[in-house]
Amino acid sequence: MAQRYVRVQTADGQIYYGLLQLSREVRVLDAPPWLNGQLTDLELLAESYSILAPCAPSKVVAVGKNYADHAAEMGTPVPEEPLLFMKPSTAVIATDGIILYPPQSQRVDYEGELALIIGDRCVDCTPEQAQGKIWGYTIANDVTARDLQRKDGQWTRAKGFDTFCPLGPWIVRDVSPGARLQTFINDALKPVQSAFIDQMVFSPDVLVSYISQAITLLPGDVVLTGTPEGVGPLQVGDRVRVEIEGIGYLNNTVAIRVPETT
Amino acid sequence: MAQRYVRVQTADGQIYYGLLQLSREVRVLDAPPWLNGQLTDLELLAESYSILAPCAPSKVVAVGKNYADHAAEMGTPVPEEPLLFMKPSTAVIATDGIILYPPQSQRVDYEGELALIIGDRCVDCTPEQAQGKIWGYTIANDVTARDLQRKDGQWTRAKGFDTFCPLGPWIVRDVSPGARLQTFINDALKPVQSAFIDQMVFSPDVLVSYISQAITLLPGDVVLTGTPEGVGPLQVGDRVRVEIEGIGYLNNTVAIRVPETT
Repeated sequence: MAQRYVRVQTADGQIYYGLLQLSREVRVLDAPPWLNGQLTDLELLAESYSILAPCAPSKVVAVGKNYADHAAEMGTPVPEEPLLFMKPSTAVIATDGIILYPPQSQRVDYEGELALIIGDRCVDCTPEQAQGKIWGYTIANDVTARDLQRKDGQWTRAKGFDTFCPLGPWIVRDVSPGARLQTFINDALKPVQSAFIDQMVFSPDVLVSYISQAITLLPGDVVLTGTPEGVGPLQVGDRVRVEIEGIGYLNNTVAIRVPETT
Repeated sequence: MAQRYVRVQTADGQIYYGLLQLSREVRVLDAPPWLNGQLTDLELLAESYSILAPCAPSKVVAVGKNYADHAAEMGTPVPEEPLLFMKPSTAVIATDGIILYPPQSQRVDYEGELALIIGDRCVDCTPEQAQGKIWGYTIANDVTARDLQRKDGQWTRAKGFDTFCPLGPWIVRDVSPGARLQTFINDALKPVQSAFIDQMVFSPDVLVSYISQAITLLPGDVVLTGTPEGVGPLQVGDRVRVEIEGIGYLNNTVAIRVPETT
């Protein structure tokens, strides 16, 4: 089975990058693996850590309408060039984290996606060079307040709410182009989204190259590659699971966002 | 004169926060001032450092069409709510830094703006609470590839190019609501933009409160408050200066972006 690269936190608040073993122990690295992190002697027992999003990106760059069938369901053509937007790093949560449904929206959608982890500073790259900058792959849910997306025109708020970027559970170095992406709600056996990631309009190397002509990507940054057909609403109390063959499952639940008293 | 909070880099690559003296010496702090940085014994001579953008934000949240006269010149109404977008932190450059004109665009505009520096984690704040989270003020130039902004629809790429967020030169704790913002190109005596910052549609406290209902703001994050009327094109070779009374001058020049060979 492919090596699984995780980021975890122990009870004392320490954060570690490491390799997840089948025993669920984590063999700790002394730095993020894309920064040449080396194995240490430290091993964390299965009960001694909680899993975090597998990286802490300085930015999350995302791409709209990158599957033809999803562009069609949104009533829009496939863009001639990748359509970029960003999600704030404060939106990132881990697998098993809670998606908070904000009071401003009456329609919050899931969007299952393949996520790319950048391993190396990337600026003005060709697609060939860009491929070499993609260190690994994980799963994302590009949660979107659909009503606010339409209302605002700019997508920053609708896609930028705290908790609106579940990411994980871990990173693998490679994914098959023919891997299937599926999204499931609650206990339904039938997926609400099912596609092969090679159905993307712009492939990962092209996306990273395109972004890098404008915006420098840094190690640990994340690129979301767009969602296929089948987007739909989440309800408070729902469980949502995004699967990509060869990577794993990204599981999250939905709860009401209760304003913090500050 | 108001205390000026700077961020500087010395020849050995060290980065410091500090207080800029009239002598141009920098009295070094042991942490960012909004994280309770205290004065150290270290003083940097005027020749021994270069000035950086005054903070290193985890994100830059910006607001569109926040002056009625600018909304009018763009041919659009003033939004009913603040219109949010983001600029990547990789776009931030300091005063005297070079704005790189990308080959993808034939129309790159300046947009002089007041920038807010967040001092404290800010989530679900009222405007009154939000005011207390604004640690200080600086100047920004929300550089925009106007042709790509129109073409893409989403503003992320057009406003997100490397070097498209000049910020500085320093932070002051307070700014007069009646302060004048002016933008000058080259040696022209007449400003291309001139407005009072209290002509904003949504005031800083309202903006920060609004953002915090969706996106958690962190210490050192930056909020750009929108540009007044008078936006226009930059040419390669231009110098552009944004001034705000009581803060200072943000000076940048424009050069061609030559793709890096990677």
